[in-house]
Amino acid sequence: MKERPILVHEVGPRDGLQVEELVVPTEQKLEWVQSLAASGVDLIQVGSFVHPRKVPQMADTDELFRRLARPGVLPSSVRLTALVLNEKGVDRGFACGVSDFCMGVSASDTHSRKNTGMSTKEALSRILAMARRVVGAGKRVQVSVQSAFGCGYEGPIPEARVMDLAQAFLDAGFTTVSLADTAGHADPAQVERLFGRLLEAAPGIEVACHLHDTYGLGLANAYAAIRAGVTVLESAFGGLGGCPFTAVAGGNVCTEDLVHMLHRMGLRSDIQLGPIVATTRRAEAFFGRKLPGTIYKTGPIPAPGEEAS
Amino acid sequence: MKERPILVHEVGPRDGLQVEELVVPTEQKLEWVQSLAASGVDLIQVGSFVHPRKVPQMADTDELFRRLARPGVLPSSVRLTALVLNEKGVDRGFACGVSDFCMGVSASDTHSRKNTGMSTKEALSRILAMARRVVGAGKRVQVSVQSAFGCGYEGPIPEARVMDLAQAFLDAGFTTVSLADTAGHADPAQVERLFGRLLEAAPGIEVACHLHDTYGLGLANAYAAIRAGVTVLESAFGGLGGCPFTAVAGGNVCTEDLVHMLHRMGLRSDIQLGPIVATTRRAEAFFGRKLPGTIYKTGPIPAPGEEAS
Repeated sequence: MKERPILVHEVGPRDGLQVEELVVPTEQKLEWVQSLAASGVDLIQVGSFVHPRKVPQMADTDELFRRLARPGVLPSSVRLTALVLNEKGVDRGFACGVSDFCMGVSASDTHSRKNTGMSTKEALSRILAMARRVVGAGKRVQVSVQSAFGCGYEGPIPEARVMDLAQAFLDAGFTTVSLADTAGHADPAQVERLFGRLLEAAPGIEVACHLHDTYGLGLANAYAAIRAGVTVLESAFGGLGGCPFTAVAGGNVCTEDLVHMLHRMGLRSDIQLGPIVATTRRAEAFFGRKLPGTIYKTGPIPAPGEEAS
Repeated sequence: MKERPILVHEVGPRDGLQVEELVVPTEQKLEWVQSLAASGVDLIQVGSFVHPRKVPQMADTDELFRRLARPGVLPSSVRLTALVLNEKGVDRGFACGVSDFCMGVSASDTHSRKNTGMSTKEALSRILAMARRVVGAGKRVQVSVQSAFGCGYEGPIPEARVMDLAQAFLDAGFTTVSLADTAGHADPAQVERLFGRLLEAAPGIEVACHLHDTYGLGLANAYAAIRAGVTVLESAFGGLGGCPFTAVAGGNVCTEDLVHMLHRMGLRSDIQLGPIVATTRRAEAFFGRKLPGTIYKTGPIPAPGEEAS
C-alpha cells in the first residue's frame, strides 16, 4: 500500500470566520485565500452553503468560488472545498463549480438537532443521499462524523456510535472520512485509539481529522492523529474559529502552528509559513484583537545563528 | 517489570518564578506551595540554590525549605525538590534538610558556558561529583540533560551528544534521569524518539521530562513523552516560567493543562485541578497579567449537563 502524504486542509475561511460577527468583505476574503494558497497548503475550505440570514459571514460563498475559479487567481495545485449542509447547498455548489464537497453528521443527537433540526439517524440518511449525488456528478466528497470525541451538550460520545456512523459511510462507498472534534473535547490517547480503530476497519481509505484547541490539546491531538495514520489535517490560520452551534468551542487548531510542528517533524517542508502568518496578521488587524495562534507571535524556532525573535 | 505510575513534578515555584523580576514574598510562596501540595501533585520544586544577587527571586529557598518542613505545613505524601547548580548549593541543601536534589548538564556547550561558565565536559564532571555526594549522604538525586532537544544559541543538538551525557549518568549509577527541552525546541516525534532511545538503553530507570511551551508544542511533547515511557512530567502552574539564561524561552508546560490532559486520558484522576487553578489565579493577581495557561481561563471540559464555562 502506497503511503499517503500528509495534507493540510485550511478551513479558516469557513470554520475560522463563520463565528465572527464582523463580516469580512469579499475582496478581503479573496486576498486571504490567495495568500493562504500561496503557502502551498493542499486544500482550502472557502465557505459553506448555509442560509445567509443564518450565517451572514458565509453569504458570499458562491461569489468567492466563481471569482477564485478565474484563470490565474490561484495556483492550480490547490483544491477548494465547500461545506454543504443540505440539498440546497449541493445545488448551489454545483452552480458555482465546486469540485470538493465536505459534509457531515453529528454523533451527538443533541448537537445534530440544534445544528440541523434532525436526529443523527435522519441526518445520516440525508447526508448519504447528498454524498451519492455529489459523487454521481463526478465530484469529490469528504464525509465526516462531527462531535466524534465528545459534545458540549451530551458530554462523552460512545466510540461505537462514531464507528457505526463511519461504517455507514464506508458501506456506502465513501473513502474519504473525517472525524471531527467539534467541541475540542478530544484527548490524544482517545484520538489515537479512535482513528486507529477506523483505519483498522478500513485500511487504505483517506482519513481526515478536524480538531479544535478549546482546552489546549489541539496540537497534541494532531500529533496523535498523525501517529494513528491520519493524513488530512484540518486547521485554521491564526487559530480562528469555533462552531456557533456548539455549547463551548474554542478555535480550530492553528494552521501555522500545525505546519511549524510538521516542519519540525521533517514533514511538508514545502509549505511556506510566511504567507500563512501574513494572512493571520491581516486577520488580526481586521478583527482588532490578538488571535489564538502562537507562531505568528513568536516566529518559528530560529535556525542556529539567527536572531532570536 | 512493574509499571511506574505517572508523577507530576510541579516546578513553578522555581522555574516558573526565577524569570520574574517582581520578587514573590516568602509568605506568598509558602501559600502557593501549600496550595499546590493540596492538589496531590507528587513533587514540588521549591527553589534553587543560586547566588541571591544572580537570581534574587530564589534568595529565600533555604528559608522556604525550613518552614515547609515544619510539622503540619504540608501533606507527608509530597516530596520537595531543589535545583542545585554547584557544591555550595549542595551545602545549602544539606543545611536546610533537602532530600531530593535536581541538577543537570547542558548538552549545548554555549548554553553551558553562559549558564555555568563551564564547558559541557567540565560541567559533567562537576555534576557527577555533586550527584555522588548527594547519594552518598543518603539523599535522592535527579540528573538531567538540559537543552536536550535544541538550543536557542546552537540550534539542533545531536542526539548522540544527549545520549552520551545520559549514558555518563547511567554509568555512574544514577537511575533518575531527565531530558530537558530548555528552549522549547522539541517536537513530539523527536521527543518520542529520544526518550525511546534512552529507555531502550536503560529499561527500568525512572525517566523525567522537562518541557517548555515556547512554540505551542508543550502538551504534544508531553503526550509523546508519556507514549515513550516517561513517568515524571515537570510543569509549572499557570504555564509560568522560562530560563533567564537561554536566548528565547517561553513558559513551562502548564501544570493544570497537563493534569487536565492526564485526566482526559484516564490518568491521575486523584490530582485535583482546583488547588492548582486557585494558585494560578493568585499568581495572575500578584503579577497583574494573564498567564499562558488555558484551563484556568476555560475551566476543564464540563461533565454532561454542567453549565458550559
